[in-house]
Amino acid sequence: MADNNNHLVIMAGGIGSRFWPMSTPERPKQFVDVMGCGRTLIQLTMDRFEGIIPYENVWIVTSAAYAEMVHEQLPEVPESNILKEPCRRNTAPCVAYVSWRIKSQCPRANIVVSPSDHIVLNQKEFRRVIKSSLLFVSESDAILTLGMQPTRPETGYGYIQADLSTPCVRNREIFRVDQFREKPDLPTAKKYIAQNNFFWNAGIFVWNVNTIVNAFRIYAPSLSDIFESMMSVYGTPREQAVVNERFPQCENISVDYAIMEHAEEIYCFPASFGWSDLGTWGSLLENSERNRYGNALIGNDIRTYDTQNCIVHTTDERRVIVQGLDGYIVAEKDGVLLVCKLENEQQIKNYSE
Amino acid sequence: MADNNNHLVIMAGGIGSRFWPMSTPERPKQFVDVMGCGRTLIQLTMDRFEGIIPYENVWIVTSAAYAEMVHEQLPEVPESNILKEPCRRNTAPCVAYVSWRIKSQCPRANIVVSPSDHIVLNQKEFRRVIKSSLLFVSESDAILTLGMQPTRPETGYGYIQADLSTPCVRNREIFRVDQFREKPDLPTAKKYIAQNNFFWNAGIFVWNVNTIVNAFRIYAPSLSDIFESMMSVYGTPREQAVVNERFPQCENISVDYAIMEHAEEIYCFPASFGWSDLGTWGSLLENSERNRYGNALIGNDIRTYDTQNCIVHTTDERRVIVQGLDGYIVAEKDGVLLVCKLENEQQIKNYSE
Repeated sequence: MADNNNHLVIMAGGIGSRFWPMSTPERPKQFVDVMGCGRTLIQLTMDRFEGIIPYENVWIVTSAAYAEMVHEQLPEVPESNILKEPCRRNTAPCVAYVSWRIKSQCPRANIVVSPSDHIVLNQKEFRRVIKSSLLFVSESDAILTLGMQPTRPETGYGYIQADLSTPCVRNREIFRVDQFREKPDLPTAKKYIAQNNFFWNAGIFVWNVNTIVNAFRIYAPSLSDIFESMMSVYGTPREQAVVNERFPQCENISVDYAIMEHAEEIYCFPASFGWSDLGTWGSLLENSERNRYGNALIGNDIRTYDTQNCIVHTTDERRVIVQGLDGYIVAEKDGVLLVCKLENEQQIKNYSE
Repeated sequence: MADNNNHLVIMAGGIGSRFWPMSTPERPKQFVDVMGCGRTLIQLTMDRFEGIIPYENVWIVTSAAYAEMVHEQLPEVPESNILKEPCRRNTAPCVAYVSWRIKSQCPRANIVVSPSDHIVLNQKEFRRVIKSSLLFVSESDAILTLGMQPTRPETGYGYIQADLSTPCVRNREIFRVDQFREKPDLPTAKKYIAQNNFFWNAGIFVWNVNTIVNAFRIYAPSLSDIFESMMSVYGTPREQAVVNERFPQCENISVDYAIMEHAEEIYCFPASFGWSDLGTWGSLLENSERNRYGNALIGNDIRTYDTQNCIVHTTDERRVIVQGLDGYIVAEKDGVLLVCKLENEQQIKNYSE
């Protein structure tokens, strides 16, 4: 049963530069069938909320350049729910814009904010956690973050330190946040893991619209001023023109820095539903179906010989033969070919420039 | 000055399976700009004879499927000089057909027979040797083969053992052939090299038309009967229909087996003009311009990082990045991608099936 006050915000403005050439500025990875499953990452993201959030309550915030692609890939979402940022200003202005926009038409909305390019392997558990979280924020002024149970001392993620001693009374799976921690070095990450009260910050937030709007008013008043000032234009034909004028004045800042690290009523829902941010080829390899040689082969006709631990992603190619590689990325897209050691993938950003 | 009796026969029926995916049955390597120089191998082959053989004396023997491609690539050659084999029967029927065909219109022709997919780095020396050879055969009934001065104990080529003790009187660079030797194993190849009188068989033959026609009459009478019987149709509108009917009756045999290994008046012109049969990716790498890391990069925009001794051939791709490879082939063509160790290239035939 969909609650008509439940809303989903998908942040889809990223450019996925670490996944080049599969992901390009013209078509970032959220718009690509990364897993070779027939659905793009943004489609998979919306699919996960089916039956929880009605399509008319799904909001996509993206850059103007990607709006048409969003509409093509998510035709169920009303075009007026695709919010177009005139420029990139990180996540705080993005979240502020969509929050005021939703408030203008649904002042009692409960909102899940989700990245557009992550994957979740255990849908059932994910949906249970989301429903439980939406119920929780509908009855409280909590800012709720999902904390992923870590499975390794990952240095590529931020961490949430929770106070596990006193669970919330109304939902005993939810705990107060002690601190947000930035991406740690390896010894620190190992220490975090050993302590059991550290969770990966998945960038998935749940709150009611008044909670987040008030948090902006308190912790980021310059942003709240901008979006408050546009109350009379949201949902009108003038909206885009006014946003185009005012949005560029926003500070370039993440929602984590602007709000999370300052707010007091912040809670964490530790969860474990096979999440990955798919930020790197290595994480795609880990999350893809691998054959007995440890290869993930995503494409039409890929044959390997004497090849292990490789990810081959070549959906445009009719046929691919890979011989004698161990631990490599082989990726082809739109006339751009990459062959690169997995251990070297942090350099891909530089190669693609 | 072109001598109007001088003819060039380019054998262009091969399918180049060891060069997959650059070379495919639809467009074998002789029709590909393998070197990335703007000319295909068959174009480069004809270019080498400019000013020695007039275009109207250039003959191409190929399969019917490639005739249109030959005409597109060599528009200077009269279409009636493109002889179409209805089926593949190795080189002896090919040479016999074109020999009788030339004889029917030029009974005093001197002929160079050349493969279509080899390369020559020193054009000036090549042209000197060809001119000297044509002069030699115009005055004698010799079957002349060019013997390439070997630079390594190559096991992929056949060898010609020459009797260097007594040079020909009329051309002291030319010697009688003692024996043709098939592709040797490595110890044998090393022995050949050490002896100084062994040369690579480049498959380039020079003779006058009566010499070769008579050699077929003596050593391959079943072939000569077939092509002799068609004397009245060569150059007429009926030629192709009759050839289509009779050619399939030819024995499947190479000109080396049918003629060279039996004939008595066989001579060798040892020469050194940077020849390669470009039979393998490895030989292409050796014959291409290599950068200081030993890479041969043939394509529009190929960048390498931490990469040595690789051949990258990706003329269709807009951009290619290769990182962390040593001794590999990376080749892309028409939606088919190959990544393979150079030392494993003998397996490519199997991969492509």
